[in-house]
Amino acid sequence: MNLLELAKKRKTVRKFDSKMPSFEDIKYAIEVAKEAPSGKNDQPWLYVLIKDDNRKKEIRKICEKGEKTFYDNSKGELREWLDKMGFSWEKPFLSEAPYLLFVYSNMKSPFSKESVWISIGYLLLALEEKGLATVTYTPSNFNEISNYINLSKEYKLEVILPIGYSIDPKPKYKRKDIDDVLIIK
Amino acid sequence: MNLLELAKKRKTVRKFDSKMPSFEDIKYAIEVAKEAPSGKNDQPWLYVLIKDDNRKKEIRKICEKGEKTFYDNSKGELREWLDKMGFSWEKPFLSEAPYLLFVYSNMKSPFSKESVWISIGYLLLALEEKGLATVTYTPSNFNEISNYINLSKEYKLEVILPIGYSIDPKPKYKRKDIDDVLIIK
Repeated sequence: MNLLELAKKRKTVRKFDSKMPSFEDIKYAIEVAKEAPSGKNDQPWLYVLIKDDNRKKEIRKICEKGEKTFYDNSKGELREWLDKMGFSWEKPFLSEAPYLLFVYSNMKSPFSKESVWISIGYLLLALEEKGLATVTYTPSNFNEISNYINLSKEYKLEVILPIGYSIDPKPKYKRKDIDDVLIIK
Repeated sequence: MNLLELAKKRKTVRKFDSKMPSFEDIKYAIEVAKEAPSGKNDQPWLYVLIKDDNRKKEIRKICEKGEKTFYDNSKGELREWLDKMGFSWEKPFLSEAPYLLFVYSNMKSPFSKESVWISIGYLLLALEEKGLATVTYTPSNFNEISNYINLSKEYKLEVILPIGYSIDPKPKYKRKDIDDVLIIK
């Protein structure tokens, strides 16, 4: 399978089977991710892998508290879109996915955010290659959930990736045509 | 070749052959990039491809003006690193690479920066798959160079990717071991 086929196949997934993926597959995806380029080659990424059920439940509880506030305050076009898509403050994938992978950036490094999100791009494709699914979940209360993990202050939480096998029937959202995103000058 | 082999092979390149890559290969890489997930599926990316020699020369001139100021002002650890690596304000790759690909994010979209950098991650791997090389060049004077391209104000320039075949003898910089970037909790 070439990269275009892999990228087209890869979709965002929010419902996970309880079947535990092999740790080797998760490790493989991180081995790929850490090959990304980075500012000053600082490799400002840190990946924290969680599989303990109680810990995942606590994380879900903290995130859902933030989501409730976010949903209560969201209005207009965004709120309409959220309702239309069937999204709510409930994030069952945070306790149901076999793994949660927290991805951090070291804020002391130049272009740390950019570098870490390149690495997340690599990671998404590598998970897909192993038949694994995820969603780039960005909590509403980043600080609170970051405090729960309790890393050194220079690390900023960028995303939580729940990882497992998909049982999500939702199809991949459509992409624009290339002519709508590519300008030739 | 699996994704890990592809990612390990991919290195940052700053010296390019004058041989023109096929437009189909560039298009392929963008087809891959636009499959990335994005906040609200807004697909907030815009790719502007430039191959005109005079335009590339002008871009180089504007960027090097910014680089001169940056190098004059850079001190301490960063400056030592730049000198050690043999970097200077001169950016010949901006006129020598057959193509320049400007990547923009639409600031009106949620998580536009994150989404666009995932897409850049996809793009880097797709270029490598086609035997093409690039460097994620972030100019010091983003605003000035962005004005030169003259897109609508909501578009923010994230990176310039010079694209071509590598003639860069520099090896890939070493990556940390997985145990230094992965924490199991």
